[in-house]
Amino acid sequence: MLSRALSLAAFAAFTAFGLQVAKADPLPSWNNGPTKDAIVEFVEAVTTPGSDSYVDPAERIATFDNDGNLWAEQPVYFQITYAIDTAKKMVAADPSLAEKSPGLKAAAEGDIEALLADGHKGLLEVMAASHAGMSTSAFKQSVADWFATSKHPKTGQRYDHMIYQPMLELLAYLRENGFKTYIVSGGGIDFIRVFAEQAYGIPPEQVVGSSIKAEFKLDGDTSDTIKVAELFFYDDKDGKPVAINHHIGRRPLIASGNSDGDLQMLQYATTGDRPGLGILLHHTDAGREWAYDRDSKIGHLDKALDEAGQRGWVVVDMKEDWATVFPFDLP
Amino acid sequence: MLSRALSLAAFAAFTAFGLQVAKADPLPSWNNGPTKDAIVEFVEAVTTPGSDSYVDPAERIATFDNDGNLWAEQPVYFQITYAIDTAKKMVAADPSLAEKSPGLKAAAEGDIEALLADGHKGLLEVMAASHAGMSTSAFKQSVADWFATSKHPKTGQRYDHMIYQPMLELLAYLRENGFKTYIVSGGGIDFIRVFAEQAYGIPPEQVVGSSIKAEFKLDGDTSDTIKVAELFFYDDKDGKPVAINHHIGRRPLIASGNSDGDLQMLQYATTGDRPGLGILLHHTDAGREWAYDRDSKIGHLDKALDEAGQRGWVVVDMKEDWATVFPFDLP
Repeated sequence: MLSRALSLAAFAAFTAFGLQVAKADPLPSWNNGPTKDAIVEFVEAVTTPGSDSYVDPAERIATFDNDGNLWAEQPVYFQITYAIDTAKKMVAADPSLAEKSPGLKAAAEGDIEALLADGHKGLLEVMAASHAGMSTSAFKQSVADWFATSKHPKTGQRYDHMIYQPMLELLAYLRENGFKTYIVSGGGIDFIRVFAEQAYGIPPEQVVGSSIKAEFKLDGDTSDTIKVAELFFYDDKDGKPVAINHHIGRRPLIASGNSDGDLQMLQYATTGDRPGLGILLHHTDAGREWAYDRDSKIGHLDKALDEAGQRGWVVVDMKEDWATVFPFDLP
Repeated sequence: MLSRALSLAAFAAFTAFGLQVAKADPLPSWNNGPTKDAIVEFVEAVTTPGSDSYVDPAERIATFDNDGNLWAEQPVYFQITYAIDTAKKMVAADPSLAEKSPGLKAAAEGDIEALLADGHKGLLEVMAASHAGMSTSAFKQSVADWFATSKHPKTGQRYDHMIYQPMLELLAYLRENGFKTYIVSGGGIDFIRVFAEQAYGIPPEQVVGSSIKAEFKLDGDTSDTIKVAELFFYDDKDGKPVAINHHIGRRPLIASGNSDGDLQMLQYATTGDRPGLGILLHHTDAGREWAYDRDSKIGHLDKALDEAGQRGWVVVDMKEDWATVFPFDLP
């Protein structure tokens, strides 16, 4: 029986080795260390049957902020750049628009100071002109065209390629573990839906965002919704838990954000009946991306950073924790 | 070779018989006939790879009205009954409420005429008192308790058992064919979510409905959303396509309703770039359920019935097309 016992031992060793090889690192762009460990330990705890922290797959909801969390947001939110670029094109096509709207005139002249003066009055005109008065389909086509033809001023890359490789891996890792991944963004719901499925694997019905009103229009055998220049819902700060309850109807098990706009979403995820995971991305990498927090207008991060320690949120230090930032930087 | 040919023929005959037996009727509570055929033919056309009408699974969205379409709505929408029952309980617990609110007083006295007088002023008070000023969790618990203890006046059954067996089969059949099934209801989103998963297999995130505003409230280590007595969105008529675009971001491939409140949803589903299926349930069965259409306030069906022929919508005649109405009537 000795030889049989030996071959069984060899088989067991081989199998263990095989399993180890098969279980590849699901987060290769995250450096090893306490941040990565905390995320993996939480996911394993809530997905291991029999664990005290086990959570039914139906309740595995993960919500992600978008700007500065799944893609970059500097030097200005990309949706604002879309609005200004579109306003420029509108004025080029019809110069009389600049006479009627000081905002469109300022956009056409690239006068950012004028756009922001007087409580952002000019910028609001630009947002309205570029986001309303058209069908949802026409708006989405215009955004898709802009993505195909525009480049980011610093990286020279397409805007929809400036997504974070480590977050793509985290989204995929969570989905493999039975999570439904959602975007919950202060950005526009229709704008994000144009690229979220291809960029992140997040389908339109799992995008929650800010929105303006819309009206249904039927014209014979065709119909569409028409975007109206009036705010419907501002999905930021206190609005995020409200929108999550409205769209999803379940408290998130994991919430991930990078600014004070995400504070309440992280509070909501981590103050329920069961443990929840809050993840806060800290932009600390001036070399590969940007470094900003308490003094920044874009992605202002102050209160949430103070509260992270108290509530046990995982703070991701971009410079320390990420081996790669953008997919186009992958070795 | 003759015997081989014979046995092949026998095998072929046996296989064909076997396949026929294996493919059980997915809609056993629908009587055979043109209505059932039209539904099955549409589903087979959009799901058969290589078919001209083939639709990618991600685009297979089916939206269902709830009241009078997935469950009954007579003699009055069940959510109204919940509100009145709750108001009665509130007044019983604190009689001073009746002095402060004529609506609560009328509800406590069962005076429906007083509730509906003056533009439904009393009823609105009752709706506000029973639906707002509490957390979403507390509201859902209250609704769940009501379902557990209340019976329908005509059938003596639980309200959440008064669902339509043929529609349960249709929902399951569509899901088996890769459809994502949604409720799109004029009823309250939080109310429907209490029973939709168990009753219909539709999870909270696939329920779209009317809603009031809400506020996020954090209290130390606990938090919730608090329901506020102010309308946020009325999900009926023109509002249905708008809400579908807002929540789902895709045009439905199938839309199913039973009243003029569903007219625009059916128009939206059937006036896109590709063929869509509109299904209109006509309540024609005074014996097993109710018969009502153009003259009814509840489930008013007039324009949509006129438009059905012109747009090729499938009209379901409850009396003719359904072998069974409620699950509790199953043989």
